[in-house]
Amino acid sequence: MTTVLLDVDTGIDDALALFTAALSNEIELVGCTVVWGNVDVDQGARNTSEVLRLAGHADVPIAVGAAGPRNGRVAVFSPQVHGDDGLGGCADTAHEPRLAAESAVQLMLRLSHEHDGTLEIVAVGPLTNLAAALDADPTLPERIRQVTIMGGAALAAGNVSDTAEANIWHDPEAAQAVFDAPWELTMVGLDVTMTSLITDEHRARLAAGGAVGRFSSDILDFYLGYYEGYTGERASGNHDALALAVATGLVRTTLSPIVDVEVDCSDGPSRGRTVARLEGEWGTWPDREGARHRVVMEVEPGFEDRMVDLLAGA
Amino acid sequence: MTTVLLDVDTGIDDALALFTAALSNEIELVGCTVVWGNVDVDQGARNTSEVLRLAGHADVPIAVGAAGPRNGRVAVFSPQVHGDDGLGGCADTAHEPRLAAESAVQLMLRLSHEHDGTLEIVAVGPLTNLAAALDADPTLPERIRQVTIMGGAALAAGNVSDTAEANIWHDPEAAQAVFDAPWELTMVGLDVTMTSLITDEHRARLAAGGAVGRFSSDILDFYLGYYEGYTGERASGNHDALALAVATGLVRTTLSPIVDVEVDCSDGPSRGRTVARLEGEWGTWPDREGARHRVVMEVEPGFEDRMVDLLAGA
Repeated sequence: MTTVLLDVDTGIDDALALFTAALSNEIELVGCTVVWGNVDVDQGARNTSEVLRLAGHADVPIAVGAAGPRNGRVAVFSPQVHGDDGLGGCADTAHEPRLAAESAVQLMLRLSHEHDGTLEIVAVGPLTNLAAALDADPTLPERIRQVTIMGGAALAAGNVSDTAEANIWHDPEAAQAVFDAPWELTMVGLDVTMTSLITDEHRARLAAGGAVGRFSSDILDFYLGYYEGYTGERASGNHDALALAVATGLVRTTLSPIVDVEVDCSDGPSRGRTVARLEGEWGTWPDREGARHRVVMEVEPGFEDRMVDLLAGA
Repeated sequence: MTTVLLDVDTGIDDALALFTAALSNEIELVGCTVVWGNVDVDQGARNTSEVLRLAGHADVPIAVGAAGPRNGRVAVFSPQVHGDDGLGGCADTAHEPRLAAESAVQLMLRLSHEHDGTLEIVAVGPLTNLAAALDADPTLPERIRQVTIMGGAALAAGNVSDTAEANIWHDPEAAQAVFDAPWELTMVGLDVTMTSLITDEHRARLAAGGAVGRFSSDILDFYLGYYEGYTGERASGNHDALALAVATGLVRTTLSPIVDVEVDCSDGPSRGRTVARLEGEWGTWPDREGARHRVVMEVEPGFEDRMVDLLAGA
């Protein structure tokens, strides 16, 4: 059993991660912090609340965080990927979100004390909230078991620019602060999330399931349509849920060297790239002495099937 | 038969490309221009002259070019990879180089007129000479059949930094000028050169051959030693000769989409990266409309065996 705080920008693949966290017996979801990203932070908070209610976990505290990037530039969202409402047009406009009175930073710090040494932070949006929490309390890393992010691309192409993955590209300066902090950090990037696929057959199995399964199928219908235009196939990367699965042992990594990662914070064409020390590219990469960033390059296949079973059953 | 001008910074793998160009019946080598890079430009010119004499082609004109990068910064060489003399300690110090009176730019422009429409430029060092030739005569591309470069890394890790391949990293601004010029350009980068391997068994076959074979074995002994420290295996990428082989049809490409490439000229951690439009990373990449840069991602295996046969026989 892993104690998890999920930092989300709920979008479609975030919703699947939230369902997984809420439904898995291996995970105790103790809180959600919401960040801007796929959608604006208020819509993201509404969606998080709706999804957790659907999963029967309306009791999990949800706190609203940053509305835009650390450097103060204008926030850019991704309606083409997730729909205007972040849930492929399926968000319940009548839903009354139940949100915590405290801020995302306050909730994160409070939970870090309540679960001192055991709290796993899984961050699947831009890293603005985590960077703000580090600003507010630089001792935070001492109390965190590990941070796992969905973000970046070590050798894979980007998905928002030729080089950059969306979560990092949205806020490179925040990402750099999070990579710099003295905690153990695991990066689950496009190198693995774009080879861990949710197919239309998965979606059909979800559609034949319970309320959570049917909702998952509905939102995936939009998501797979976006991916079809992007890659030519009706299959999507399983971004956010895969990061959660890696963090909590729901999937085993088979190649994940510990190397240094630097975020490209330049204004050049590689802005937002996660520059990982993976030189010498034959076969496996050794852990680098003194490095602190575990970069997941390969996972055992099969998690998507188990996830679909879990969600279809609820 | 392809008419070739080779732009070299003769080093060990350049020597193998020069031998291949001199000995192949499919190639008419009409000139060599020398650029700084693996070694300083004067040593590179000496080495080029020595190698061509060994191959029985002392008649090919050799012209000296740029001694350092386009932006005026200090030139950095690679003695750890190629030896202090660029030939793994095997350069003949008594060799009297025979060099053209004209400059690299002058030779390149003259040959472009003499072989108007048929000249293939194969550039396997930093692109400083080519950028200078474009400055001197912007109409040069009209007379060139194609430019093929050994350089860059589209999805592979770099070899001189985490992101950048050495030839591009040495002079990103020159590379950008060459990518921008209106000629057909094929990029043969680490994506394929680091999977087209010269092994110790290849070296042993060269050692059992004639004078060119034995010399190739001697210099490769140093090169494979460097690679052993770098990757753990006594095998090297076949960088420069592979670019020549792609340019002249000695090897067939099996995946080489035409996409746009931008050179990272920032001072960030990705300086020198070749940012290729390879988003949407499932399976093959389609040619992009209006793009002009052919990025070789896969070649038919077997060229190294044929190259070793050619060199061992001479």
